[in-house]
Amino acid sequence: MADARFFPSAGPFTLLQIAEIARLRLPANCDVQRRFTGIGPLDSAAPEHVTFFESRRYAKALATTRAGACIVAPRDAARVPATSIALQSEAPQRSFAALAAAFHPERRPAPGIDPRAVVDASARLGTGVVVEAGAVIGARAEIGADVWIEPNAVIGADVAIGAQSRIGANASISHALIGARVRILPGARIGQDGFGFALGKGLHQKIPQLGRVVIGDDVEVGANATIDRGAMDDTVIGAGTVIDNLVQIGHNVRIGRGCVIVAQTGISGSTRLDDGVMLGGQVGLGGHLRIGAGAQAAPRSGIIRDVAPSEAVMGYPAMPLRHFLRLAEKWRREGRRLSQGTARAERDED
Amino acid sequence: MADARFFPSAGPFTLLQIAEIARLRLPANCDVQRRFTGIGPLDSAAPEHVTFFESRRYAKALATTRAGACIVAPRDAARVPATSIALQSEAPQRSFAALAAAFHPERRPAPGIDPRAVVDASARLGTGVVVEAGAVIGARAEIGADVWIEPNAVIGADVAIGAQSRIGANASISHALIGARVRILPGARIGQDGFGFALGKGLHQKIPQLGRVVIGDDVEVGANATIDRGAMDDTVIGAGTVIDNLVQIGHNVRIGRGCVIVAQTGISGSTRLDDGVMLGGQVGLGGHLRIGAGAQAAPRSGIIRDVAPSEAVMGYPAMPLRHFLRLAEKWRREGRRLSQGTARAERDED
Amino acid sequence: MADARFFPSAGPFTLLQIAEIARLRLPANCDVQRRFTGIGPLDSAAPEHVTFFESRRYAKALATTRAGACIVAPRDAARVPATSIALQSEAPQRSFAALAAAFHPERRPAPGIDPRAVVDASARLGTGVVVEAGAVIGARAEIGADVWIEPNAVIGADVAIGAQSRIGANASISHALIGARVRILPGARIGQDGFGFALGKGLHQKIPQLGRVVIGDDVEVGANATIDRGAMDDTVIGAGTVIDNLVQIGHNVRIGRGCVIVAQTGISGSTRLDDGVMLGGQVGLGGHLRIGAGAQAAPRSGIIRDVAPSEAVMGYPAMPLRHFLRLAEKWRREGRRLSQGTARAERDED
Repeated sequence: MADARFFPSAGPFTLLQIAEIARLRLPANCDVQRRFTGIGPLDSAAPEHVTFFESRRYAKALATTRAGACIVAPRDAARVPATSIALQSEAPQRSFAALAAAFHPERRPAPGIDPRAVVDASARLGTGVVVEAGAVIGARAEIGADVWIEPNAVIGADVAIGAQSRIGANASISHALIGARVRILPGARIGQDGFGFALGKGLHQKIPQLGRVVIGDDVEVGANATIDRGAMDDTVIGAGTVIDNLVQIGHNVRIGRGCVIVAQTGISGSTRLDDGVMLGGQVGLGGHLRIGAGAQAAPRSGIIRDVAPSEAVMGYPAMPLRHFLRLAEKWRREGRRLSQGTARAERDED
Repeated sequence: MADARFFPSAGPFTLLQIAEIARLRLPANCDVQRRFTGIGPLDSAAPEHVTFFESRRYAKALATTRAGACIVAPRDAARVPATSIALQSEAPQRSFAALAAAFHPERRPAPGIDPRAVVDASARLGTGVVVEAGAVIGARAEIGADVWIEPNAVIGADVAIGAQSRIGANASISHALIGARVRILPGARIGQDGFGFALGKGLHQKIPQLGRVVIGDDVEVGANATIDRGAMDDTVIGAGTVIDNLVQIGHNVRIGRGCVIVAQTGISGSTRLDDGVMLGGQVGLGGHLRIGAGAQAAPRSGIIRDVAPSEAVMGYPAMPLRHFLRLAEKWRREGRRLSQGTARAERDED
Repeated sequence: MADARFFPSAGPFTLLQIAEIARLRLPANCDVQRRFTGIGPLDSAAPEHVTFFESRRYAKALATTRAGACIVAPRDAARVPATSIALQSEAPQRSFAALAAAFHPERRPAPGIDPRAVVDASARLGTGVVVEAGAVIGARAEIGADVWIEPNAVIGADVAIGAQSRIGANASISHALIGARVRILPGARIGQDGFGFALGKGLHQKIPQLGRVVIGDDVEVGANATIDRGAMDDTVIGAGTVIDNLVQIGHNVRIGRGCVIVAQTGISGSTRLDDGVMLGGQVGLGGHLRIGAGAQAAPRSGIIRDVAPSEAVMGYPAMPLRHFLRLAEKWRREGRRLSQGTARAERDED
């Protein structure tokens, strides 16, 4: 159960309410007025909680769960123990996420500008905006309705932020147009100079970075991630793309819609990702590449060539996933053999 | 010698005082009232300084040191030149660290809340707390005695911080319970949302992150490191664990006591490290893994399977260290041979 | 064209002015009074814009550009289409950078200390300094003429910053001496404790970090990069070196002049880079290494041995670039063959 200190509960909800919130099919003959006080994982949920099951990896935990109700796919309904009500969903995790959000709605400060925030007189703020203490909003910035700006965040001059977005503590944004319902987590850096220099024997000469960062709706940017603005064109993040902590996105990168980019990955300048690309953690992409729609890169891949749509790659230099897995298996055996050979040779020398 | 501008000195100390501070055995017939004004490395310490020797790598520097005294292990005492007093310790580096701390105690502002800090009226602060300008402390936060919060740090609602901890400039903490004597370096991000989504063809649906970050006593978290809070359970960092800069720790990770995690390493969600694990820099760990007590990963290892207690691994995918070193040696020779073959072939073509 | 919302224009300039700003040779018989309103890339510049051409990769775009003038090397002047005036430069990109800076000078707040900044009474500020809201400047800090400190940045006690430097939003600096014309991008962390512990079975004992960070003139440090101060000696960054986002530089590292260090690279403690070293993105360097002048490491190299001057390396463990490329080519073929073998074997089993 969530710690009430940090996550106050909005429940209880009846089974009928729960079915509506999470789009669930209730079994026949269940008591639709039965009340549930919260949610929990399979192994620790109590009879007054709702849990969910989606991965077979947790089949054992499902068999012994004490949860009073369990969201499952129709094909798994029969696995739910008799002590738990099987609530059917085509997408159990999505249903559970919706229910979790209903039980624990985001705790939001009352609208208003903290007197210790610094908002330029020429900035335009929509209704319902929250600006917490220490936040600084520059000249002519446009902050949409219900935007929430956390303490000590810095919004530069002329930046636009769409409705219902949330900007984390100590984050900074400049030279950027940001969509609606975007979440920028604490410490993210958006819109600073790209890394562009005319290299030379003497001083490297800085190339003015004259583009912007343009972020679509429903994007999430992780803590301490960095997104540089473009040099001449813009750096673009498509709607619905989610970016994890400490990711680096270089200038002029263009990312499509619905991409998933896991922590500590870096994308070099002018590379383009089409829609639905998924990059594991600590992946690196060279500059000026094109990664096709739906392509996937395993964690720690280093990509130096274009990747075709839907292709899965791994390794450095990245190759087709299937190829790399075979190669890695060969390396594993080879490493063992070489090491044993050495051990034997060393024994022989004794 | 430390720059007095940044590191004022608390000395001088007599040899007798030094022996007590650093738990040293003095040689017979030395002048216990002789005064030393500071510390220094072997190659630049002066006669009024104390130095130390532990690694044979520096044997040459020891032979020519001008330091007036040198902390050494008993087995190395005879190596100390006649111009330097050999001060014996079972752990020379630890002794030296204690002496360094005595000569240069941390320069701490006077207790009190800067009038330009923002502390919620419902927050509870212990005695001796320092809150510097621009720091923001949320509702109901509990700040232990002698905690030091640096400028522009942000402590969220309900966060608890144990006595004598120090929170760096521009760091942010939310949804977290933090032990005593913990050091969070500048810009670290603790307690923000984990990276959890129910992926889909349309929008990826955010899964509410309802866990906390729980940090034990005597932990250090590096600059701009990120530790996400748990999804349902907590993210846990055991007592005495030290974490370097730009490290990423995903949601629900559980780290034991006394671990060492070097810079830019990333640990994926739900992975568990037992006590005393050591991870080199730029290591990556997959999710849901178990790393046994005392295991070690060389820098840049990519770990995708469980690691047994005390095992040492290297490479990607990680294999036993010994195996990888042999394999790498084979690669080195192979790369050279292939390149020479090509060079020869190219010459033949001419 | 740059978005005038973020990048107001200082033009128009005549061809004569442009030739002076960017050190260009004008063709005979051109109208030196013709006015240009801005700059743009080859493919989108209009007749009233100046563009540039340097890489043959863009030869096609040059042939069809609508730009009214194009900066080119003398050897490429004949490639410029007749609708565009060929402006000759020995270094077209540098010339273009200078012109871009003239058309779009950095938009700088008026000098002065924002009343919501916090400047210690003992700090000394030069003429023309800008301190924006929420910035905190510690005791005895020395801020040179025309330095610009952005919102919520934190400058620690006794730090010195040279003239015309700029410190980004939410950055923090302590225990550091910083040169002139240095740019620290938002969220960078400079001068915090290095990662030094006397490791032990019980608690790891922190080793006081008593060195400084010393940064030369004309250095750039990227967003959320981290540079730790030295343990006993200093961490040193030579003049003109440029460092990208999320780079980690450990204690006692010494970097020469004019180095280029791309994003997410990490340099372990006490390693030394001589002048003009270039490190690609996500490179890792072990500790106590020496990297010779002009050496280059390809992206994702992991360097565990010294590198000779002018040597180019790649891979992990890093080997000569040429060797690694051959080896990688072999791996690519091997992975394909192994995978096909398996596919064939699987078909045979059916």
